[in-house]
Amino acid sequence: MRSEGEHHKNLDATLKGVIALLERQALVHQLVARTDTRKHALVQSLVERQHAVELEKKLNGLHPADAAFVLESVRQEQRIAAWLLIRRERRGAVLLELAAPIRTSLVALLEEPELVAIGQQMEAEDFADLVQDLPQERVDAVLAQLSTHERAEVQSVLSFPEGSVGAIMQLEVVTVRTDVTLEEALASLRRRGSLPAQLTSLTVVDRDNVLQGMLPLDRLLVGDVNLHVNEVMDAAPTYFLTNDTDDDAAEMFERYDLISAPVVNLHNQVVGMLTVDAVLDHVKQDSFKQALSQVGLSEDEDLFAPILQSGRKRLAWLGVNLLTAFIASRVVARFEGSIAQLTALAALMPIVASIGGNTGNQTVALVIRGIALSQLNTSNMLFLLRKELAIGIINGALWGVACATVLLYHSVGLAAVMASAMVLNMLVASVVGVACPLLLKRVGRDPVMGSSILLTAITDSMGFLIFLALASALLL
Amino acid sequence: MRSEGEHHKNLDATLKGVIALLERQALVHQLVARTDTRKHALVQSLVERQHAVELEKKLNGLHPADAAFVLESVRQEQRIAAWLLIRRERRGAVLLELAAPIRTSLVALLEEPELVAIGQQMEAEDFADLVQDLPQERVDAVLAQLSTHERAEVQSVLSFPEGSVGAIMQLEVVTVRTDVTLEEALASLRRRGSLPAQLTSLTVVDRDNVLQGMLPLDRLLVGDVNLHVNEVMDAAPTYFLTNDTDDDAAEMFERYDLISAPVVNLHNQVVGMLTVDAVLDHVKQDSFKQALSQVGLSEDEDLFAPILQSGRKRLAWLGVNLLTAFIASRVVARFEGSIAQLTALAALMPIVASIGGNTGNQTVALVIRGIALSQLNTSNMLFLLRKELAIGIINGALWGVACATVLLYHSVGLAAVMASAMVLNMLVASVVGVACPLLLKRVGRDPVMGSSILLTAITDSMGFLIFLALASALLL
Repeated sequence: MRSEGEHHKNLDATLKGVIALLERQALVHQLVARTDTRKHALVQSLVERQHAVELEKKLNGLHPADAAFVLESVRQEQRIAAWLLIRRERRGAVLLELAAPIRTSLVALLEEPELVAIGQQMEAEDFADLVQDLPQERVDAVLAQLSTHERAEVQSVLSFPEGSVGAIMQLEVVTVRTDVTLEEALASLRRRGSLPAQLTSLTVVDRDNVLQGMLPLDRLLVGDVNLHVNEVMDAAPTYFLTNDTDDDAAEMFERYDLISAPVVNLHNQVVGMLTVDAVLDHVKQDSFKQALSQVGLSEDEDLFAPILQSGRKRLAWLGVNLLTAFIASRVVARFEGSIAQLTALAALMPIVASIGGNTGNQTVALVIRGIALSQLNTSNMLFLLRKELAIGIINGALWGVACATVLLYHSVGLAAVMASAMVLNMLVASVVGVACPLLLKRVGRDPVMGSSILLTAITDSMGFLIFLALASALLL
Repeated sequence: MRSEGEHHKNLDATLKGVIALLERQALVHQLVARTDTRKHALVQSLVERQHAVELEKKLNGLHPADAAFVLESVRQEQRIAAWLLIRRERRGAVLLELAAPIRTSLVALLEEPELVAIGQQMEAEDFADLVQDLPQERVDAVLAQLSTHERAEVQSVLSFPEGSVGAIMQLEVVTVRTDVTLEEALASLRRRGSLPAQLTSLTVVDRDNVLQGMLPLDRLLVGDVNLHVNEVMDAAPTYFLTNDTDDDAAEMFERYDLISAPVVNLHNQVVGMLTVDAVLDHVKQDSFKQALSQVGLSEDEDLFAPILQSGRKRLAWLGVNLLTAFIASRVVARFEGSIAQLTALAALMPIVASIGGNTGNQTVALVIRGIALSQLNTSNMLFLLRKELAIGIINGALWGVACATVLLYHSVGLAAVMASAMVLNMLVASVVGVACPLLLKRVGRDPVMGSSILLTAITDSMGFLIFLALASALLL
């Protein structure tokens, strides 16, 4: 038995060992590439073969989730090398544990017969997960080689759109009828011999498979065996429709501390189960989404993807950023005359822009969380706006005055312009910080995506404009 | 029975109704405050009493988690009004569902006798959660009125530091001995009569309460009743020590799809259970942490806190921001002579700064996720740095050239300076973006806290410095 604490430390050491081996192999690669070409092949094959044996042993001794972690932690060439060392019969299990973009790249490497073999062993919903990103003709070719029943199951899962409960539910459901006694229910479970992992409740249905309730295993265990299922069951369980969203489901699981819940079709017939482990995976994946999408990246971004692939994805957002920076630049250019007369303006204008961007980004982060937790609605939006405006005025005035004091020796007028511009730009930042995510949501867009870039663009341009316009009007 | 889909919609409507009622009450408040003072008291009490009855009925009809959601979605004065309408016997349950900062503010409102009453009904670990933020003398006064056993349990939970498994585990464990048969185990469960909600496994111990294994309920259900527990149990379960961190535990739950796991002390004796609902709450709370702390806010930030309270928290980070903006401003001031000669420099310098800040923030977001998922370590850090540098050079060169082309009509020299400065500042951004969170972590600080503010400070100053220095050296 292993304590989680020491297990974690041992695991850490093991994983680091495997990763270091993979790194060393890459290093040997580089070294031999530099040596005399005649010795090249010999040295390389010797060293690599030795490492490969050690690596293969270690990799295949890991829990599939840990092997997946190793694959996620190394760069692409080593990842493929490591992947090929994993034994065929373990590959399906490892794939299931991988983050989506990495899984997609490795599934694409599998030959058709291997995919078919994996499809025959694996649960339909898991297999559907694996093949969903493959080109349609490859999916069809693989599915054609599965049994009619397996094919139908995989196709049914594939038919649910991404983000729906149907796409993440499991298909295996252990059902029991309302009118049997607990004794009969227990006997039928014993006849089954084994139960799905993590089963905590039986799903109670009528003869048409229509959901009637849920029977938690502990009630079955301690209940009077002569009672009927419908006398003991929870007759009003929380359940989901296949087209409910996974976000809503996650919220319900968290709010009502659910472990599993039945999923029904439009006729209330039970078609699957949603379990907490699928929900936890979903929430965990989501947890880095906001921080990444605020700067224009997706949560699928792979830290160790090749340079060109990563660079291409970021190029577009940098283009947007450059365009907005150009607009800010044009604003400044309009006041070049004023700057020529008083060059201190050029030195001071970034302060106004920067403090606005900072305030606005704080507001954006709060509003996005409020939207995600459904705490923000039309009735309290105005309150929030007023509150953020008030904070903007107070903090703007405080820091504006502090800033102005520093400038006083220079010029009283400049100090006054500086303080006023800071307050005004913080007001702009508050309004845009509240409005920008809410408007994006209203027009049906993701409120997070690039909101930080958009906000900074506006606070920069407005900061320059307010400060330079005030200075031109009042000082020159 | 309710479908989650329709339930969700109905719930949404109900919650909106309650929130609207609370808003209306606040409005009435404002209106009467403006009317003739003689009528004031009468009108107010009439209208408020009517609303209060309706509100009280609705609030007390909600699931505690939903009532908590309503309290989280309204501003502080309405929150307290609503809180006082919740029936005393339900208050404990509602408190448990509230976000930490709001819970703390409402617990502080409870009188001592009410706290004692709640402490007598509630599980010790839940009660410890409620009182942990109260002043020590209030906690002592309340605990003194509990039974010795209850007091000892609460104190033991309070003794575990925040962020440890001990602080979020539940104390009730259903144990079974290794040497009994499944039939005897089943019989003893029946004698208990009821089992804790969400129990999925019995904890197997020896006579000294030392952990021996876990017996999943489904194995108990379908196993041969004449077998002994130690023949059927999982003899190598994942378990935790009380001082393991909740982050590590969450990672293990997610990685190995756990539903519950035993928690042991240093003598391997079972002292509690960690369940997936506690882990899910933890992960969910954490999920907005990165986005908020990057801009200097904590996840405890309450969207509807009073203005002064919210303003004070943000003032400090704005001060840091202002200080860094001043440094950038001093950099620009050193080149005022150059700007006076060529005012176009003032208009162009924000572009260089902005593109650096944007690139760097993308890198920071990726590195922070890598740290959180433990995918980043010393062996692959250099690879990542090289990769980010390469992306910086490529994207910097592409956009630099694009930018330079626009400027060509103006001056070939300026175009060249612009492109070089952009490439150089993007290199700075890449290095700082990788190094900043990793260094913060190395010195034992939270890698996320304010990293975005720090990075932007450096890319701004360096952007101005590189661009203006290059321009001064080459063009003037």
